[in-house]
Amino acid sequence: MARALPPGLSEQDFDAAIARFREVVGDKYVTTDDGALARYRDPYPVGTEVPAGASAAVSPESTEQVQQIVRIANEFGVPLSPISTGKNNGYGGGQPRLPGAVVVNMGERMNRVLEVNEKYGYALLEPGVSYFDLYEHLQAHAPTLMLDCPDLGWGSVVGNTLDRGVGYTPYGDHLMWQTGLEVVLPTGEVMRTGMGAVPGSNSWQLFQYGFGPFPDGLFTQSNLGIVTKMGIQLMQRPPASTTFVVTFDQEDDLAQVVDIMFPLRVNMAPLQNVPVLRNIILDAGVVSKRSEWHDGEGPLPPEAIEKMKSALNLGYWNLYGTVYGPPPIIDMYLGMIKDAFLQVPGSKFFTHHDRDEATDRGAHVLHDRHRINNGVPSLDEMKLLEFVPNGGHVCFSPVSAPDGTDALRQAKMVHRRADEYVKDYAAQFIVGLREMHHIALFLYDTADAQARQETLNLARVLIDEAAAEGYGEYRTHNALMDQVMGTYNWGGGALRNFHETVKDALDPNSIMAPGKSGIWGRKYRGQDL
Amino acid sequence: MARALPPGLSEQDFDAAIARFREVVGDKYVTTDDGALARYRDPYPVGTEVPAGASAAVSPESTEQVQQIVRIANEFGVPLSPISTGKNNGYGGGQPRLPGAVVVNMGERMNRVLEVNEKYGYALLEPGVSYFDLYEHLQAHAPTLMLDCPDLGWGSVVGNTLDRGVGYTPYGDHLMWQTGLEVVLPTGEVMRTGMGAVPGSNSWQLFQYGFGPFPDGLFTQSNLGIVTKMGIQLMQRPPASTTFVVTFDQEDDLAQVVDIMFPLRVNMAPLQNVPVLRNIILDAGVVSKRSEWHDGEGPLPPEAIEKMKSALNLGYWNLYGTVYGPPPIIDMYLGMIKDAFLQVPGSKFFTHHDRDEATDRGAHVLHDRHRINNGVPSLDEMKLLEFVPNGGHVCFSPVSAPDGTDALRQAKMVHRRADEYVKDYAAQFIVGLREMHHIALFLYDTADAQARQETLNLARVLIDEAAAEGYGEYRTHNALMDQVMGTYNWGGGALRNFHETVKDALDPNSIMAPGKSGIWGRKYRGQDL
Repeated sequence: MARALPPGLSEQDFDAAIARFREVVGDKYVTTDDGALARYRDPYPVGTEVPAGASAAVSPESTEQVQQIVRIANEFGVPLSPISTGKNNGYGGGQPRLPGAVVVNMGERMNRVLEVNEKYGYALLEPGVSYFDLYEHLQAHAPTLMLDCPDLGWGSVVGNTLDRGVGYTPYGDHLMWQTGLEVVLPTGEVMRTGMGAVPGSNSWQLFQYGFGPFPDGLFTQSNLGIVTKMGIQLMQRPPASTTFVVTFDQEDDLAQVVDIMFPLRVNMAPLQNVPVLRNIILDAGVVSKRSEWHDGEGPLPPEAIEKMKSALNLGYWNLYGTVYGPPPIIDMYLGMIKDAFLQVPGSKFFTHHDRDEATDRGAHVLHDRHRINNGVPSLDEMKLLEFVPNGGHVCFSPVSAPDGTDALRQAKMVHRRADEYVKDYAAQFIVGLREMHHIALFLYDTADAQARQETLNLARVLIDEAAAEGYGEYRTHNALMDQVMGTYNWGGGALRNFHETVKDALDPNSIMAPGKSGIWGRKYRGQDL
Repeated sequence: MARALPPGLSEQDFDAAIARFREVVGDKYVTTDDGALARYRDPYPVGTEVPAGASAAVSPESTEQVQQIVRIANEFGVPLSPISTGKNNGYGGGQPRLPGAVVVNMGERMNRVLEVNEKYGYALLEPGVSYFDLYEHLQAHAPTLMLDCPDLGWGSVVGNTLDRGVGYTPYGDHLMWQTGLEVVLPTGEVMRTGMGAVPGSNSWQLFQYGFGPFPDGLFTQSNLGIVTKMGIQLMQRPPASTTFVVTFDQEDDLAQVVDIMFPLRVNMAPLQNVPVLRNIILDAGVVSKRSEWHDGEGPLPPEAIEKMKSALNLGYWNLYGTVYGPPPIIDMYLGMIKDAFLQVPGSKFFTHHDRDEATDRGAHVLHDRHRINNGVPSLDEMKLLEFVPNGGHVCFSPVSAPDGTDALRQAKMVHRRADEYVKDYAAQFIVGLREMHHIALFLYDTADAQARQETLNLARVLIDEAAAEGYGEYRTHNALMDQVMGTYNWGGGALRNFHETVKDALDPNSIMAPGKSGIWGRKYRGQDL
């Protein structure tokens, strides 16, 4: 395959930069080989013409090496694309937003757990530490601490937090618990935030704000630096826990469910964790293939949905949550939850004690959630990709108010368009304190160019349709970043203007992750990239 | 008194700008009168020579007027100093950091409660809304919601949050609950953050992060803009509450108390709120005059301290907290708290039911805390200023790890220096989840130039001494901002360099609050101001 250089960069400058990168990190940690670069391609590409991937990848071992890489990139005008583990699947994986950018793989060698403090409950991590890595480290060295994992545990704790991912325990808002960053800025300086800016501080991971403007949020969903260390606070493992599912039979039950849920959630009790409301396609997707339910073309017909519900003993919507504490608290909270939701006609309530995953396919998600909600990372959700041949998914992730009527309106809008574009609507609402992340995963055959294009078209239509209703996405695929940032356009695009001003000041040569979150440095602005 | 113009500004340009300000906001909302400007002077000045105050004050009525003021300031090079209610006492009050800057009084006319949503628990506020204002509004329109107040209720909710002030309910970390800003940037553009950037969004106050870099923290303790609207999430009023005090007899008990406290606090139960550990000088200070306990010169001798403890039936340290919930939860948590702390020899436990504030001076703080911890603003702590003649205080506010030995070391360091400089050590530890704000209030006679200078000297010595031990302050007085920012100097001052780069990009004429938090725009950098 022809080498895809970054736009506007000469082969000579590219080669010179690569040679310098090799001097810094060692030959074996720089690759320009197309085969080796395949791991940095989007695993679920969209669109008929898939954009070119990285031109090279560099794996530094230390903050100092990251600084040198950044300085060389400035010298030659080489765009960089830092990743940690690169598992941002559904949003572009490890592929650079800008075709031809050089991946800075922070995960390969910078994967150390630098500190875990069991008493205070925090960890200081390098970007390559995955949820599995940290889980194993905690089990061995600090077993009283509990991790908050996202659905899949192979990703980076740092990367997930910086992309504002979420989990499902009471510590599910990962950014809320982030405390202290070390960042290499786009010109190569290294900075520590919070109390880390006081030499010799013993509270870097204890108090996030420090003194003066609090910049940490600026480095999330961002292209303003490469984070080399991050602190994250960890919850203490509770004495016991029980995971439950409440099944709701009808799609339209969503409105009533959300209205019942909000008051139980906003005070962090009895719904202590971040519950998740998943539809039957998502739950069936991880334990079966689509062909089991439906053979023909077109969206899954109502009969197929009914077959799924009945075969799996689940509802159209299924609410999963976990209660923690000493057993009397657990019993009290479970009773409150059960009483509240069983008001919905046709609903059923089970705990993970009631259903056996060995013999009951419909209990698989329940038990998987029990593990995840107790800090045990999992990869079971990956089975969703086997639902369709060569399965891929793109996430459409609007924020939803916790209002029943409004949530149902948003869900119907997405479902209607998914039917129109013949993509299965595998959906979940991840329930924060006062909002929900509505995450619709559109499943498609990644080997089918037309399906890729339809999926992209569907997402594009939905972003605009949602924006017209005042809904915005919390996160998006590389291919959709410009469009989504374009919907955050109050006041003539004041927010993007602000970000561009900061970007140009901190990154005068526009070398850092061009285009990430729809923000381009001046070098690339106005081009169609 | 001679007019104190901003440094480098000609009288002609100043007058021209003032005339233009008058056109924008109306004559009566611009003042250059020295008498009228007195309200913007630091109520507790430090140092022998008190810096000049504001040269003028302008009170806009709308975001549009703020934009016009900012544009005029750019045109003429007039430095602005935005305040809300200006009650930042102990840190400089409403006085500009830069002598002669023009106060933009956001509190006088922009004091509207724009929205309160009782169901979702949030308010959208203008900067002039005080805790008292919001309390009254909630009582009238949304009585199920509870405010989180700081010690004194006359300040601005927006201003306190932006200065990263704290309160004492479970929502005590005010910035954690801030959701959505509208900001006029230093060049006059207006921006909305979070979901507010999506026109027509119904989740501006429900989800803080939005899409792309999350910039809100950048506008706290900051000089990067004028916030014109801010969202704040509010807790639901619990069914019942009981406030307690545990008294600890000896100064050195601090170590044991902190070690007992941390595990009770980190899980937000049984210590649900932000408890505060106050020393006897602070508690006596709000119900008595110093002369009652000691007549002579010098620091309060041990006998005076003993007299206070005995007369007020309090300890050297007194831990105040509130438990919330249905009565069975309250009883259970109070029992756990009592059992844990009464291990400390000589300690005593009281609830607000046990002691009558009408007849028991030593119960005054307990009842005041009960009100504050239930969202009722108070001004009672102002009585502390009557402890000494013409009383003022400066706060020295280092962050402390929740480790007994370490906290005691920090407390002793401060106490020793306070004795040396003959200032009373009125102290409190405000207990977050994993850190404490150690706030030492040094009380002094503001009419006594020597006392003012000694207080300043004391603070200066402590900042450096604390930094040598790795301790940094979370907030500081105008006069100390440069010094404190100078202690956040890891990596050759990388953090300040970062802030200056952002500052210059967003505020090319250095008009916005020069010197706030030790950050100066390029126009003033390197000058001794």
